[in-house]
Amino acid sequence: MTYCLAASVNAGLVFAADSRTNAGLDHINTYPKLHPFVWEGERALVLLSAGNLATTQSVVAELQRESQSGGPLYEARYLDEAAEYVGRLSQRVQSRHTPEGPGASSVSLEATFILGGQIGDQEPGLFLVYPQGNYITCSDEQPFLQIGETKYGKPILDRIIEPSLSLEDAARCALVSIDSTMRSNLSVGPPLDLMIYQRDSLEFPRALRYKLNSPYFASIRKQWGDGLRRLFDELPRFDWEK
Amino acid sequence: MTYCLAASVNAGLVFAADSRTNAGLDHINTYPKLHPFVWEGERALVLLSAGNLATTQSVVAELQRESQSGGPLYEARYLDEAAEYVGRLSQRVQSRHTPEGPGASSVSLEATFILGGQIGDQEPGLFLVYPQGNYITCSDEQPFLQIGETKYGKPILDRIIEPSLSLEDAARCALVSIDSTMRSNLSVGPPLDLMIYQRDSLEFPRALRYKLNSPYFASIRKQWGDGLRRLFDELPRFDWEK
Repeated sequence: MTYCLAASVNAGLVFAADSRTNAGLDHINTYPKLHPFVWEGERALVLLSAGNLATTQSVVAELQRESQSGGPLYEARYLDEAAEYVGRLSQRVQSRHTPEGPGASSVSLEATFILGGQIGDQEPGLFLVYPQGNYITCSDEQPFLQIGETKYGKPILDRIIEPSLSLEDAARCALVSIDSTMRSNLSVGPPLDLMIYQRDSLEFPRALRYKLNSPYFASIRKQWGDGLRRLFDELPRFDWEK
Repeated sequence: MTYCLAASVNAGLVFAADSRTNAGLDHINTYPKLHPFVWEGERALVLLSAGNLATTQSVVAELQRESQSGGPLYEARYLDEAAEYVGRLSQRVQSRHTPEGPGASSVSLEATFILGGQIGDQEPGLFLVYPQGNYITCSDEQPFLQIGETKYGKPILDRIIEPSLSLEDAARCALVSIDSTMRSNLSVGPPLDLMIYQRDSLEFPRALRYKLNSPYFASIRKQWGDGLRRLFDELPRFDWEK
Protein backbone atom coordinates (compact mmCIF):
# COMPACT_ATOMS: atom_id res chain seq x y z
CA MET A 1 0.00 0.00 0.00
CA THR A 2 0.81 3.65 0.11
CA TYR A 3 -0.44 6.73 1.82
CA CYS A 4 -0.69 10.06 -0.01
CA LEU A 5 -2.64 13.14 0.91
CA ALA A 6 -3.11 16.68 -0.29
CA ALA A 7 -4.65 19.64 1.49
CA SER A 8 -6.00 22.85 0.05
CA VAL A 9 -5.83 25.95 2.24
CA ASN A 10 -6.29 29.61 1.35
CA ALA A 11 -2.53 30.10 1.21
CA GLY A 12 -1.92 27.26 -1.23
CA LEU A 13 -1.59 23.49 -1.48
CA VAL A 14 0.28 20.85 0.49
CA PHE A 15 1.15 17.42 -0.90
CA ALA A 16 2.63 14.56 1.11
CA ALA A 17 3.36 10.89 0.59
CA ASP A 18 5.27 8.00 2.04
CA SER A 19 7.58 6.19 -0.35
CA ARG A 20 7.22 2.48 0.42
CA THR A 21 6.07 0.18 -2.33
CA ASN A 22 5.46 -3.50 -1.91
CA ALA A 23 4.55 -6.44 -4.02
CA GLY A 24 4.36 -9.00 -1.24
CA LEU A 25 6.25 -8.81 2.03
CA ASP A 26 9.58 -9.81 0.50
CA HIS A 27 9.46 -7.29 -2.29
CA ILE A 28 9.52 -3.99 -0.50
CA ASN A 29 11.04 -1.00 -2.17
CA THR A 30 11.27 2.77 -2.09
CA TYR A 31 9.80 4.76 -4.93
CA PRO A 32 8.70 8.40 -5.00
CA LYS A 33 4.95 8.88 -5.28
CA LEU A 34 4.98 12.64 -5.65
CA HIS A 35 5.62 13.99 -9.14
CA PRO A 36 5.79 17.71 -10.00
CA PHE A 37 4.96 19.04 -13.48
CA VAL A 38 5.87 22.70 -13.49
CA TRP A 39 6.10 25.36 -16.21
CA GLU A 40 7.27 28.30 -14.15
CA GLY A 41 5.13 31.40 -14.42
CA GLU A 42 2.46 29.45 -16.30
CA ARG A 43 1.27 26.42 -14.35
CA ALA A 44 2.36 24.21 -11.47
CA LEU A 45 0.88 20.72 -11.06
CA VAL A 46 1.70 17.86 -8.68
CA LEU A 47 0.59 14.25 -9.15
CA LEU A 48 0.39 11.71 -6.29
CA SER A 49 -0.04 8.03 -7.09
CA ALA A 50 -1.27 4.92 -5.29
CA GLY A 51 -2.15 1.42 -6.42
CA ASN A 52 -0.54 -1.01 -8.82
CA LEU A 53 3.10 0.03 -9.22
CA ALA A 54 3.38 -0.97 -12.89
CA THR A 55 0.32 1.12 -13.71
CA THR A 56 1.43 4.19 -11.75
CA GLN A 57 4.98 4.01 -13.12
CA SER A 58 3.69 3.75 -16.70
CA VAL A 59 1.31 6.67 -16.23
CA VAL A 60 3.97 8.87 -14.65
CA ALA A 61 6.62 7.95 -17.24
CA GLU A 62 4.23 8.74 -20.06
CA LEU A 63 3.25 12.08 -18.52
CA GLN A 64 6.90 13.00 -17.98
CA ARG A 65 7.82 12.13 -21.57
CA GLU A 66 4.89 14.10 -22.96
CA SER A 67 5.61 17.08 -20.73
CA GLN A 68 9.09 17.60 -22.14
CA SER A 69 7.47 19.16 -25.19
CA GLY A 70 4.18 20.51 -23.90
CA GLY A 71 1.73 17.62 -23.86
CA PRO A 72 -1.75 17.31 -22.42
CA LEU A 73 -0.84 18.52 -18.89
CA TYR A 74 0.58 21.70 -20.40
CA GLU A 75 -2.27 22.14 -22.83
CA ALA A 76 -5.20 21.47 -20.48
CA ARG A 77 -7.22 24.68 -20.11
CA TYR A 78 -8.49 23.80 -16.65
CA LEU A 79 -7.37 21.57 -13.81
CA ASP A 80 -10.31 19.24 -14.33
CA GLU A 81 -9.31 18.81 -17.97
CA ALA A 82 -5.89 17.68 -16.75
CA ALA A 83 -7.56 15.30 -14.26
CA GLU A 84 -9.71 13.93 -17.07
CA TYR A 85 -6.57 13.23 -19.10
CA VAL A 86 -4.82 11.47 -16.21
CA GLY A 87 -7.93 9.30 -15.81
CA ARG A 88 -7.99 8.39 -19.52
CA LEU A 89 -4.28 7.60 -19.54
CA SER A 90 -4.65 5.43 -16.42
CA GLN A 91 -7.52 3.53 -18.05
CA ARG A 92 -5.48 3.00 -21.21
CA VAL A 93 -2.49 1.64 -19.27
CA GLN A 94 -4.70 -0.64 -17.19
CA SER A 95 -6.58 -2.08 -20.16
CA ARG A 96 -3.36 -2.64 -22.13
CA HIS A 97 -2.24 -5.14 -19.47
CA THR A 98 -5.52 -6.66 -18.32
CA PRO A 99 -5.56 -10.28 -19.42
CA GLU A 100 -8.80 -11.64 -20.80
CA GLY A 101 -10.62 -14.92 -20.86
CA PRO A 102 -10.92 -17.75 -18.32
CA GLY A 103 -7.89 -18.45 -16.18
CA ALA A 104 -6.79 -14.82 -16.44
CA SER A 105 -4.80 -13.53 -13.49
CA SER A 106 -6.81 -11.71 -10.87
CA VAL A 107 -4.12 -9.19 -9.93
CA SER A 108 -5.63 -5.74 -9.71
CA LEU A 109 -3.98 -3.23 -12.02
CA GLU A 110 -5.98 -0.36 -10.55
CA ALA A 111 -4.36 2.92 -9.61
CA THR A 112 -5.67 6.06 -7.97
CA PHE A 113 -4.19 9.55 -8.31
CA ILE A 114 -4.41 12.97 -6.75
CA LEU A 115 -3.74 15.82 -9.15
CA GLY A 116 -3.44 19.32 -7.74
CA GLY A 117 -1.99 22.67 -8.61
CA GLN A 118 -2.74 25.93 -10.29
CA ILE A 119 -3.12 27.02 -13.92
CA GLY A 120 -2.44 30.70 -14.61
CA ASP A 121 -4.69 33.00 -12.63
CA GLN A 122 -7.32 30.31 -11.96
CA GLU A 123 -8.04 29.07 -8.42
CA PRO A 124 -5.69 26.36 -7.16
CA GLY A 125 -7.44 23.00 -6.85
CA LEU A 126 -7.21 19.30 -6.03
CA PHE A 127 -8.71 16.32 -7.83
CA LEU A 128 -8.83 12.66 -6.89
CA VAL A 129 -8.81 10.43 -10.00
CA TYR A 130 -10.40 7.01 -9.49
CA PRO A 131 -9.20 3.81 -11.20
CA GLN A 132 -12.23 4.12 -13.51
CA GLY A 133 -10.92 7.45 -14.76
CA ASN A 134 -13.59 9.64 -13.19
CA TYR A 135 -12.66 12.21 -10.56
CA ILE A 136 -13.86 14.36 -7.67
CA THR A 137 -12.61 17.53 -6.05
CA CYS A 138 -12.66 18.41 -2.35
CA SER A 139 -14.90 20.85 -0.50
CA ASP A 140 -14.26 23.72 1.90
CA GLU A 141 -15.81 21.61 4.68
CA GLN A 142 -13.18 18.93 4.21
CA PRO A 143 -10.42 20.53 2.15
CA PHE A 144 -8.21 17.47 1.78
CA LEU A 145 -7.98 14.31 -0.31
CA GLN A 146 -6.32 11.00 0.54
CA ILE A 147 -5.41 7.89 -1.43
CA GLY A 148 -4.04 4.49 -0.40
CA GLU A 149 -4.09 3.50 3.27
CA THR A 150 -6.25 6.46 4.28
CA LYS A 151 -8.04 5.56 7.49
CA TYR A 152 -5.36 5.58 10.20
CA GLY A 153 -4.35 9.14 9.40
CA LYS A 154 -7.81 10.61 8.79
CA PRO A 155 -8.90 11.52 12.35
CA ILE A 156 -6.18 14.16 12.78
CA LEU A 157 -6.98 15.69 9.37
CA ASP A 158 -10.69 15.76 10.28
CA ARG A 159 -9.84 17.70 13.42
CA ILE A 160 -7.24 20.15 12.10
CA ILE A 161 -7.39 20.86 8.36
CA GLU A 162 -9.45 23.92 7.43
CA PRO A 163 -9.05 26.61 4.79
CA SER A 164 -7.69 29.27 7.18
CA LEU A 165 -4.70 27.12 8.22
CA SER A 166 -1.24 28.34 7.21
CA LEU A 167 0.66 26.30 4.63
CA GLU A 168 3.15 25.33 7.33
CA ASP A 169 0.43 24.13 9.71
CA ALA A 170 -1.16 22.12 6.92
CA ALA A 171 2.25 20.59 6.16
CA ARG A 172 2.83 19.72 9.85
CA CYS A 173 -0.61 18.13 10.02
CA ALA A 174 0.24 16.02 6.96
CA LEU A 175 3.44 14.83 8.66
CA VAL A 176 1.53 13.85 11.82
CA SER A 177 -1.09 12.04 9.73
CA ILE A 178 1.56 10.02 7.87
CA ASP A 179 3.43 9.30 11.11
CA SER A 180 0.28 7.81 12.71
CA THR A 181 -0.28 5.69 9.61
CA MET A 182 3.30 4.38 9.57
CA ARG A 183 3.03 3.33 13.21
CA SER A 184 -0.12 1.29 12.56
CA ASN A 185 0.59 -0.14 9.11
CA LEU A 186 3.75 -1.80 7.87
CA SER A 187 3.03 -1.10 4.22
CA VAL A 188 3.46 2.65 4.73
CA GLY A 189 7.06 3.68 5.38
CA PRO A 190 9.71 6.37 5.21
CA PRO A 191 11.17 8.47 3.72
CA LEU A 192 8.33 10.97 3.44
CA ASP A 193 8.04 13.49 0.64
CA LEU A 194 6.42 16.85 1.17
CA MET A 195 5.70 19.60 -1.34
CA ILE A 196 4.34 23.00 -0.43
CA TYR A 197 2.87 25.13 -3.18
CA GLN A 198 2.31 28.82 -2.47
CA ARG A 199 -0.84 30.14 -4.10
CA ASP A 200 -0.26 32.32 -7.20
CA SER A 201 3.50 31.64 -7.20
CA LEU A 202 3.28 29.37 -10.29
CA GLU A 203 6.70 28.15 -9.24
CA PHE A 204 8.20 24.81 -8.39
CA PRO A 205 6.79 23.91 -4.94
CA ARG A 206 9.09 23.84 -1.93
CA ALA A 207 10.16 20.16 -1.74
CA LEU A 208 11.29 18.36 1.42
CA ARG A 209 12.20 14.76 2.12
CA TYR A 210 12.30 13.31 5.64
CA LYS A 211 13.75 10.09 6.99
CA LEU A 212 12.73 8.86 10.43
CA ASN A 213 15.89 10.35 11.90
CA SER A 214 15.80 13.65 10.01
CA PRO A 215 16.04 16.17 12.87
CA TYR A 216 12.83 18.08 12.12
CA PHE A 217 10.64 15.03 11.53
CA ALA A 218 12.16 13.25 14.55
CA SER A 219 11.32 16.26 16.74
CA ILE A 220 7.72 16.33 15.47
CA ARG A 221 7.35 12.59 16.11
CA LYS A 222 8.76 12.80 19.61
CA GLN A 223 6.86 15.89 20.67
CA TRP A 224 3.59 14.52 19.28
CA GLY A 225 4.07 11.09 20.88
CA ASP A 226 5.08 12.47 24.29
CA GLY A 227 2.30 15.06 24.14
CA LEU A 228 -0.39 12.46 23.35
CA ARG A 229 0.80 10.39 26.30
CA ARG A 230 0.63 13.43 28.61
CA LEU A 231 -2.76 14.43 27.24
CA PHE A 232 -4.01 10.91 27.86
CA ASP A 233 -2.68 10.88 31.42
CA GLU A 234 -4.51 14.14 32.16
CA LEU A 235 -7.95 12.94 31.00
CA PRO A 236 -10.71 13.17 33.63
CA ARG A 237 -11.05 10.18 35.98
CA PHE A 238 -14.11 7.96 36.36
CA ASP A 239 -16.31 8.70 39.45
CA TRP A 240 -14.99 5.76 41.38
CA GLU A 241 -11.35 6.74 40.89
CA LYS A 242 -11.74 10.00 42.82
CA MET B 1 -20.41 -1.06 10.13
CA THR B 2 -19.54 -1.22 13.76
CA TYR B 3 -16.54 -0.69 15.94
CA CYS B 4 -15.80 -3.00 18.89
CA LEU B 5 -12.58 -3.47 20.78
CA ALA B 6 -11.28 -5.33 23.79
CA ALA B 7 -8.07 -4.84 25.72
CA SER B 8 -6.31 -7.22 28.08
CA VAL B 9 -4.24 -5.69 30.87
CA ASN B 10 -2.76 -7.28 33.97
CA ALA B 11 -5.66 -5.97 36.07
CA GLY B 12 -8.36 -7.46 33.86
CA LEU B 13 -10.26 -6.91 30.63
CA VAL B 14 -11.99 -3.95 29.01
CA PHE B 15 -14.67 -4.27 26.34
CA ALA B 16 -16.16 -1.39 24.37
CA ALA B 17 -18.45 -0.96 21.39
CA ASP B 18 -20.53 1.61 19.56
CA SER B 19 -24.18 0.69 19.02
CA ARG B 20 -25.03 1.84 15.51
CA THR B 21 -26.24 -0.73 13.03
CA ASN B 22 -27.04 0.02 9.44
CA ALA B 23 -28.42 -1.74 6.45
CA GLY B 24 -28.12 1.12 4.00
CA LEU B 25 -28.15 4.79 4.88
CA ASP B 26 -31.89 4.93 5.49
CA HIS B 27 -31.99 1.94 7.78
CA ILE B 28 -29.90 3.02 10.72
CA ASN B 29 -30.65 1.64 14.14
CA THR B 30 -29.26 1.17 17.61
CA TYR B 31 -28.52 -2.31 18.87
CA PRO B 32 -26.19 -3.41 21.65
CA LYS B 33 -23.10 -5.26 20.44
CA LEU B 34 -21.75 -6.21 23.85
CA HIS B 35 -23.23 -9.30 25.45
CA PRO B 36 -22.24 -10.63 28.88
CA PHE B 37 -22.53 -14.32 29.85
CA VAL B 38 -21.79 -14.58 33.54
CA TRP B 39 -22.09 -17.36 36.11
CA GLU B 40 -20.94 -15.53 39.21
CA GLY B 41 -18.09 -17.16 41.08
CA GLU B 42 -17.53 -19.60 38.20
CA ARG B 43 -16.98 -17.81 34.91
CA ALA B 44 -17.50 -14.43 33.31
CA LEU B 45 -17.54 -14.07 29.52
CA VAL B 46 -18.32 -11.13 27.23
CA LEU B 47 -19.10 -11.40 23.51
CA LEU B 48 -18.72 -8.50 21.04
CA SER B 49 -20.22 -8.78 17.58
CA ALA B 50 -19.72 -7.15 14.18
CA GLY B 51 -20.92 -7.96 10.71
CA ASN B 52 -24.25 -9.05 9.27
CA LEU B 53 -26.92 -8.10 11.81
CA ALA B 54 -29.16 -11.11 11.16
CA THR B 55 -26.20 -13.45 11.73
CA THR B 56 -24.99 -11.73 14.91
CA GLN B 57 -28.52 -11.51 16.35
CA SER B 58 -29.13 -15.22 15.67
CA VAL B 59 -25.83 -16.23 17.23
CA VAL B 60 -26.38 -14.09 20.32
CA ALA B 61 -30.01 -15.20 20.75
CA GLU B 62 -28.99 -18.86 20.50
CA LEU B 63 -26.17 -18.41 23.01
CA GLN B 64 -28.50 -16.59 25.42
CA ARG B 65 -31.15 -19.31 25.16
CA GLU B 66 -28.61 -22.07 25.68
CA SER B 67 -27.01 -20.27 28.60
CA GLN B 68 -30.20 -20.22 30.65
CA SER B 69 -29.60 -23.89 31.42
CA GLY B 70 -25.85 -24.32 31.18
CA GLY B 71 -25.04 -24.76 27.51
CA PRO B 72 -21.74 -24.78 25.63
CA LEU B 73 -20.43 -21.46 27.01
CA TYR B 74 -20.94 -22.76 30.54
CA GLU B 75 -19.54 -26.18 29.77
CA ALA B 76 -16.44 -25.13 27.82
CA ARG B 77 -13.36 -26.13 29.81
CA TYR B 78 -11.18 -23.40 28.35
CA LEU B 79 -11.77 -20.01 26.76
CA ASP B 80 -10.59 -21.27 23.38
CA GLU B 81 -13.14 -24.08 23.56
CA ALA B 82 -15.82 -21.42 24.00
CA ALA B 83 -14.36 -19.45 21.06
CA GLU B 84 -14.40 -22.63 18.96
CA TYR B 85 -18.08 -23.09 19.78
CA VAL B 86 -18.96 -19.48 18.86
CA GLY B 87 -17.17 -20.03 15.54
CA ARG B 88 -19.10 -23.25 14.82
CA LEU B 89 -22.42 -21.64 15.73
CA SER B 90 -21.64 -18.61 13.51
CA GLN B 91 -20.80 -20.93 10.61
CA ARG B 92 -24.05 -22.86 11.15
CA VAL B 93 -26.14 -19.68 11.15
CA GLN B 94 -24.39 -18.34 8.05
CA SER B 95 -24.76 -21.54 6.05
CA ARG B 96 -28.43 -21.90 7.01
CA HIS B 97 -29.19 -18.66 5.16
CA THR B 98 -26.68 -18.70 2.32
CA PRO B 99 -28.57 -19.09 -0.93
CA GLU B 100 -27.12 -21.43 -3.51
CA GLY B 101 -27.00 -21.70 -7.26
CA PRO B 102 -26.74 -19.08 -9.98
CA GLY B 103 -28.51 -15.80 -9.38
CA ALA B 104 -28.11 -16.20 -5.62
CA SER B 105 -27.93 -12.93 -3.69
CA SER B 106 -24.44 -11.65 -3.03
CA VAL B 107 -25.18 -10.14 0.40
CA SER B 108 -22.46 -11.13 2.83
CA LEU B 109 -23.78 -12.95 5.89
CA GLU B 110 -20.37 -12.92 7.53
CA ALA B 111 -19.91 -11.95 11.16
CA THR B 112 -16.88 -11.51 13.37
CA PHE B 113 -16.79 -11.80 17.15
CA ILE B 114 -14.54 -11.04 20.09
CA LEU B 115 -14.99 -13.40 23.03
CA GLY B 116 -13.19 -12.59 26.26
CA GLY B 117 -13.39 -13.35 29.93
CA GLN B 118 -12.17 -15.72 32.59
CA ILE B 119 -13.02 -19.31 33.52
CA GLY B 120 -12.38 -20.27 37.16
CA ASP B 121 -8.76 -19.79 38.17
CA GLN B 122 -7.46 -19.78 34.58
CA GLU B 123 -5.85 -16.70 33.04
CA PRO B 124 -8.29 -14.16 31.59
CA GLY B 125 -8.11 -14.03 27.79
CA LEU B 126 -9.43 -12.58 24.55
CA PHE B 127 -10.22 -14.31 21.25
CA LEU B 128 -11.18 -12.92 17.87
CA VAL B 129 -13.46 -15.33 16.00
CA TYR B 130 -13.35 -14.96 12.20
CA PRO B 131 -16.36 -15.48 9.89
CA GLN B 132 -14.79 -18.84 8.93
CA GLY B 133 -15.05 -19.99 12.54
CA ASN B 134 -11.33 -20.01 13.29
CA TYR B 135 -9.89 -17.70 15.91
CA ILE B 136 -6.80 -15.93 17.24
CA THR B 137 -5.81 -14.51 20.60
CA CYS B 138 -3.80 -11.33 21.24
CA SER B 139 -0.20 -10.97 22.41
CA ASP B 140 1.47 -9.03 25.20
CA GLU B 141 3.08 -6.81 22.54
CA GLN B 142 -0.32 -5.74 21.28
CA PRO B 143 -2.80 -6.72 23.99
CA PHE B 144 -5.97 -5.65 22.21
CA LEU B 145 -8.34 -6.93 19.54
CA GLN B 146 -10.65 -4.95 17.26
CA ILE B 147 -13.51 -5.83 14.91
CA GLY B 148 -15.54 -3.78 12.43
CA GLU B 149 -14.31 -0.33 11.40
CA THR B 150 -10.93 -0.79 13.08
CA LYS B 151 -8.44 1.53 11.40
CA TYR B 152 -9.41 5.05 12.51
CA GLY B 153 -9.14 4.13 16.19
CA LYS B 154 -6.01 1.96 16.01
CA PRO B 155 -3.22 4.58 16.24
CA ILE B 156 -4.14 5.62 19.79
CA LEU B 157 -4.36 1.96 20.92
CA ASP B 158 -0.96 1.28 19.34
CA ARG B 159 0.52 4.13 21.34
CA ILE B 160 -1.16 3.59 24.72
CA ILE B 161 -2.38 0.04 25.43
CA GLU B 162 0.11 -2.14 27.30
CA PRO B 163 -0.28 -4.80 29.99
CA SER B 164 0.75 -2.56 32.90
CA LEU B 165 -2.06 -0.06 32.24
CA SER B 166 -4.79 0.24 34.88
CA LEU B 167 -8.29 -0.97 33.95
CA GLU B 168 -9.50 2.62 34.07
CA ASP B 169 -6.75 3.86 31.74
CA ALA B 170 -7.50 1.04 29.31
CA ALA B 171 -11.19 2.00 29.45
CA ARG B 172 -10.41 5.68 28.83
CA CYS B 173 -8.21 4.72 25.88
CA ALA B 174 -11.09 2.67 24.45
CA LEU B 175 -13.40 5.69 24.73
CA VAL B 176 -10.90 7.91 22.92
CA SER B 177 -10.43 5.27 20.22
CA ILE B 178 -14.19 5.02 19.61
CA ASP B 179 -14.57 8.80 19.68
CA SER B 180 -11.95 9.22 16.91
CA THR B 181 -13.71 6.56 14.85
CA MET B 182 -17.12 8.18 15.24
CA ARG B 183 -15.75 11.51 14.06
CA SER B 184 -14.33 10.00 10.89
CA ASN B 185 -16.98 7.42 9.99
CA LEU B 186 -20.73 7.86 9.92
CA SER B 187 -21.46 4.17 10.36
CA VAL B 188 -20.06 4.17 13.90
CA GLY B 189 -22.27 6.02 16.37
CA PRO B 190 -23.38 6.52 19.96
CA PRO B 191 -24.34 5.43 22.53
CA LEU B 192 -21.17 3.60 23.54
CA ASP B 193 -21.13 0.56 25.77
CA LEU B 194 -18.24 -0.17 28.07
CA MET B 195 -17.64 -3.20 30.29
CA ILE B 196 -14.77 -3.48 32.73
CA TYR B 197 -13.92 -6.91 34.10
CA GLN B 198 -11.68 -7.10 37.16
CA ARG B 199 -9.31 -10.06 37.02
CA ASP B 200 -10.24 -12.98 39.32
CA SER B 201 -13.54 -11.36 40.35
CA LEU B 202 -15.62 -13.84 38.31
CA GLU B 203 -18.42 -11.32 38.67
CA PHE B 204 -20.61 -9.39 36.29
CA PRO B 205 -18.34 -6.70 34.76
CA ARG B 206 -18.90 -3.05 35.61
CA ALA B 207 -21.19 -1.84 32.78
CA LEU B 208 -21.43 1.75 31.55
CA ARG B 209 -23.31 3.36 28.69
CA TYR B 210 -22.45 6.81 27.33
CA LYS B 211 -24.33 9.14 25.03
CA LEU B 212 -22.51 12.03 23.36
CA ASN B 213 -23.82 14.39 26.04
CA SER B 214 -23.23 12.09 29.02
CA PRO B 215 -21.15 14.34 31.30
CA TYR B 216 -18.14 12.05 31.64
CA PHE B 217 -17.87 11.15 27.96
CA ALA B 218 -18.49 14.78 26.95
CA SER B 219 -15.64 15.90 29.22
CA ILE B 220 -13.27 13.30 27.74
CA ARG B 221 -14.21 14.34 24.20
CA LYS B 222 -13.74 18.02 24.91
CA GLN B 223 -10.49 17.67 26.82
CA TRP B 224 -9.02 15.35 24.18
CA GLY B 225 -10.11 17.55 21.27
CA ASP B 226 -8.87 20.78 22.86
CA GLY B 227 -5.65 19.09 23.98
CA LEU B 228 -4.88 17.75 20.48
CA ARG B 229 -5.39 21.21 19.05
CA ARG B 230 -3.03 22.72 21.65
CA LEU B 231 -0.50 19.95 21.10
CA PHE B 232 -0.63 20.60 17.37
CA ASP B 233 -0.15 24.34 17.81
CA GLU B 234 2.96 23.70 19.93
CA LEU B 235 4.73 21.49 17.37
CA PRO B 236 8.20 22.69 16.32
CA ARG B 237 8.28 25.15 13.40
CA PHE B 238 10.01 24.61 10.06
CA ASP B 239 13.40 26.38 9.66
CA TRP B 240 12.04 29.16 7.53
CA GLU B 241 9.30 30.04 10.03
CA LYS B 242 11.76 31.06 12.73
